[in-house]
Amino acid sequence: MTQEEIKLALRGTLIHAPAAGDIEVLQDALIAVDNGGRVAAVSGPGQPDYGKLEHMAREAGKLEVLSAGEYLLPGLVDTHVHAPQWPQLGKALDRPLDEWLMNYTFPLEARYADTDFARRVYENLVHTLVANGTTTAMYYATIHLEASTRLAEICLEKGQRALVGKIAMDNPDQCPDYYRDASTGQGLDDTQNFIEQVQGMPGNSHGLVLPVVTPRFIPSCTDEMLQGLGEIATRTGCHVQTHCSEGDWEHAYVLERCGKTDTLSLDGFGLLTPQTVLAHCNFIDDDDMGVIKERETGISHCPLSNLYFSNAVFPAREALDRELQVGLGTDIAGGANPGILHNCEMAVTASRAREDGVNADLGATERGTPGARIDFREAFWMATAGGGEALGLKVGKFLKDYAFDAIVVDTSVADTNLIIWEEMDTGDDILQKIVYNAERRNITRVWVQGEQVKN
Amino acid sequence: MTQEEIKLALRGTLIHAPAAGDIEVLQDALIAVDNGGRVAAVSGPGQPDYGKLEHMAREAGKLEVLSAGEYLLPGLVDTHVHAPQWPQLGKALDRPLDEWLMNYTFPLEARYADTDFARRVYENLVHTLVANGTTTAMYYATIHLEASTRLAEICLEKGQRALVGKIAMDNPDQCPDYYRDASTGQGLDDTQNFIEQVQGMPGNSHGLVLPVVTPRFIPSCTDEMLQGLGEIATRTGCHVQTHCSEGDWEHAYVLERCGKTDTLSLDGFGLLTPQTVLAHCNFIDDDDMGVIKERETGISHCPLSNLYFSNAVFPAREALDRELQVGLGTDIAGGANPGILHNCEMAVTASRAREDGVNADLGATERGTPGARIDFREAFWMATAGGGEALGLKVGKFLKDYAFDAIVVDTSVADTNLIIWEEMDTGDDILQKIVYNAERRNITRVWVQGEQVKN
Repeated sequence: MTQEEIKLALRGTLIHAPAAGDIEVLQDALIAVDNGGRVAAVSGPGQPDYGKLEHMAREAGKLEVLSAGEYLLPGLVDTHVHAPQWPQLGKALDRPLDEWLMNYTFPLEARYADTDFARRVYENLVHTLVANGTTTAMYYATIHLEASTRLAEICLEKGQRALVGKIAMDNPDQCPDYYRDASTGQGLDDTQNFIEQVQGMPGNSHGLVLPVVTPRFIPSCTDEMLQGLGEIATRTGCHVQTHCSEGDWEHAYVLERCGKTDTLSLDGFGLLTPQTVLAHCNFIDDDDMGVIKERETGISHCPLSNLYFSNAVFPAREALDRELQVGLGTDIAGGANPGILHNCEMAVTASRAREDGVNADLGATERGTPGARIDFREAFWMATAGGGEALGLKVGKFLKDYAFDAIVVDTSVADTNLIIWEEMDTGDDILQKIVYNAERRNITRVWVQGEQVKN
Repeated sequence: MTQEEIKLALRGTLIHAPAAGDIEVLQDALIAVDNGGRVAAVSGPGQPDYGKLEHMAREAGKLEVLSAGEYLLPGLVDTHVHAPQWPQLGKALDRPLDEWLMNYTFPLEARYADTDFARRVYENLVHTLVANGTTTAMYYATIHLEASTRLAEICLEKGQRALVGKIAMDNPDQCPDYYRDASTGQGLDDTQNFIEQVQGMPGNSHGLVLPVVTPRFIPSCTDEMLQGLGEIATRTGCHVQTHCSEGDWEHAYVLERCGKTDTLSLDGFGLLTPQTVLAHCNFIDDDDMGVIKERETGISHCPLSNLYFSNAVFPAREALDRELQVGLGTDIAGGANPGILHNCEMAVTASRAREDGVNADLGATERGTPGARIDFREAFWMATAGGGEALGLKVGKFLKDYAFDAIVVDTSVADTNLIIWEEMDTGDDILQKIVYNAERRNITRVWVQGEQVKN
C-alpha cells in the first residue's frame, strides 16, 4: 500500500480470536487500515514490512500508538436484539413469560406506531450499544414499516454496522389484535418495501446497514406468511432472522402444528440460508444441527436470556464441536444487559451450569452434562469472529480484508473493577479479566469500518 | 432528638427491604442520623414529626436533599470474601478446582507472609469494595497473623465495617507444606492473638472491625484444631466463619471422615453459633437446615461462585421459605466479580436455572425444581438486611437504631447502562433496574456508621 492509501494505523497490543478457542495476543503489533475501512495489513516486530509500514503511517500523520494498559480488540457483535424492548430492560423479569409478553412486551412494541417515540428510544439504544463496544448489531424492530426504517437510519447516522428487520407476525391465533400485521399480504408488502427503503437510504451504498427478513417466530406467523417471506429471502438474497426452538412451549407448538422441528420447518419454508441467524436453538437435536451446518446457517446464543425465559441452555459445547457458526446475543430485553462482554461471561457461566448441573438433590452423575463447559476463549470468539461468521460478514478478526471494526479496552481507567496486576497477569489473563470485569467505561474508543464512532 | 444530636439528615427517595420479598419505596422521606452514626428517625411527608425534623436538620445545617435520579439504599453486605485472592479475580476460571487451588490460590495466599504485598493488595481490595457500595464485608485473610491484622487495620482506616479472620488450616493431609499453620497449637495461639489485636486496635473501640474465628473448612483442619477453635469461639463470643457443604468432593469427604454432614460436624465442634456464617451450604439437607435455624446461624449464598466451583446451586428458595438468615457473598475470587449488586442479579439468575433446569435433553418435568425461583426483591433483601441478620448486626434497613450504612445510587450518571424512563418506570421498577444494570459509577456516595467513605 502507499502512504495515501492509509486511513489509519495503530500500534499496540492486539488481542483477537481467529478460531474458536484460539486467542492471539500480538504485542506491539501494527495494524493498518485502508481508505475503505478494511484491514490492509497486520504486522509484528521483526516481520519484514513492520518498519516500513510504521514509517509510512508516521510520515502520513496517521499513526496512533496505544498507551500502556490499552488493548485493541475486535468490535463486539450482537446477533440478537429486540430494539423496541429497550425501555423494558431489567423490568418485569419476575413475571411469567406469557405475562411478560402480553402485559409488557406487546403493548410496548405497539407504541412504535408513534415514530417520535421510536426515534427517542432507538437513538438511546444505538448510542448505548456503541458505547458498550457493539460494532455490529442484528435488530428486530416492530411490525411498523416507518419506525423500523427509523431504526435503520439511526444506525447509519451513528455509524453502527446493523442488520435490521421489520417484524412479520400475522397469525391471529397467537398475536394480539392491537399488534399484528393488518394482513398477510400487507406484512409481505411491508417487508419488501422495508428492504428497498433500507437498501436505498442515502449514504448506505456500501451496505453498512442491511435489511433482514424477519418472521418473529413460527407461532406468530401463518404458513402463507412464512412461505412468502422465504420467497422474498430467496429473491433478494437478504439476511433472515427468527427464533428457533427457544423454549418448551414453542418447541412443542411447532412440532404439533408443522409435524417437525422448528429447524426443519423453517428449512421447508426456504428460510434457512447462509444469511440466516436463528436465535436460541436451545432444543435443537442432532438432525437439526446437521441441517443448520449444511445450510451454513448461523445461530445466536443468548445465554443470559436462556436462564430467564428459555427453560434450558443452548448446547454451546456441542455446537462448537460441530463447527457451527455461533455468535452471541444480548436478546434485549429478555436478557437484561446490553453488553456483549457480559454475555461472554454468561456464556461461560451457563455452560458451567450445564456441565455440573444445578440441582443438589440429584447425584453428581445424574446432575450435569459432562464436558459441556466452554471457556472465555470460546465465548470471546463467539462475541467477535463467531458472530461475524453467523452473519456472513468479514468482521471480528484482525485479518487482511476484514472490516476494521474494533474497540480499545483501557485497563487504566480510574474507578472501574478491571484491575491488572502487571507482575502477575500474563498471556491471556488480561483477556479473561476483560471478559469478567470490563465495564462500559473501559471501552474508550470504538471504530466501525475504520470510522471512529466512540471517542 | 435535639438539633445538636443530629449528625446528618437526608431527604429523598429511600428504598429498602425490611423483610424478604418486601420492598419499601419511601418517597421524599427524611432520615436523620445521630452522632453515634445510627438511624434516629425515618419519616415521610404527612407524618407528625416530618416538618419538625426537617426544620431542625435545616437549622443545624445538616440537611442534604437528594437530587432527582438519586436513591438512598442500605449499604451492601458481602458475607464471603477471600481477601488474598483479590489479584486472582477473573483468572484461571477455566481450570479445574484442584488445579485452581493448588497452582493458583494456595501459592498466591502463601505470598502474604510478605506484609508489604499484603498491604498493597488489601488497600486496593477494600477501596474497590467500598467503591462498589459494600459497607460491610466478612473476610477470610490468610494463615499469617501479621498480614491478617494488616487487613483489619486497612478496613478500619478506610471506614469499612468488616469482620476479618486469620485462617486456621493445619491438616497436613489436605494443606500444602508451604501453606499451613506451623502446628495446631500455633494456629490456635495465632487465632487468639489475632482476636486480641483486632479488638485492641486504636480507634476500634466501637467494634467497627470484628475478629472472626476462621477454620478454612473441615478438610483443611484437624479435629483438634476444630475443637480448639470451637472453644475460642465459645470463650470469646466472636464470630465464626467457614465453608459448609460447598461441593461434591467436600461434602463426601466430611461424611466419610466425620460420619455426618458438615453442618452436624461443625455443630459438634461448637462452631455453630448465632455469630457463625456458613459459606455456600449447597448440599445441606432438611435436617441441616433445621439445625442451622435452631442455632440462628447465618448462611452466605455465593451464586456466581456456585456456578463455577460448587457442582450445584444453593437452595435459596427453600432457605427463605424456612426463614433462615441468608446473606450474599461475592466469594472473591471463586466468584469473579466484586459487586454485591452483580451477585443479586446472579442470585435470581441461578434460582431460575434451578427452577427450569438447564439440560434440554431432559423432559420439562424432569429438568428443574418447580417453584425454586427467587426474585430481585428477595435477592436485594439478602444483599442488605439478610446479610445483616446472618452477621447478627443491625445493618441493612432504614429503621431506628440501625447503623446508618447506606449508598446513593445516582441513575443520572452519564455513560452508564442504568437508564430510567420516567413515564414508564414505576414502583419497584427502579430497584429492579438498579439490581440488573447499576455500575460502580452509579454508586456515588457511601456511608458507614454515619461516616461518608465514598464521595
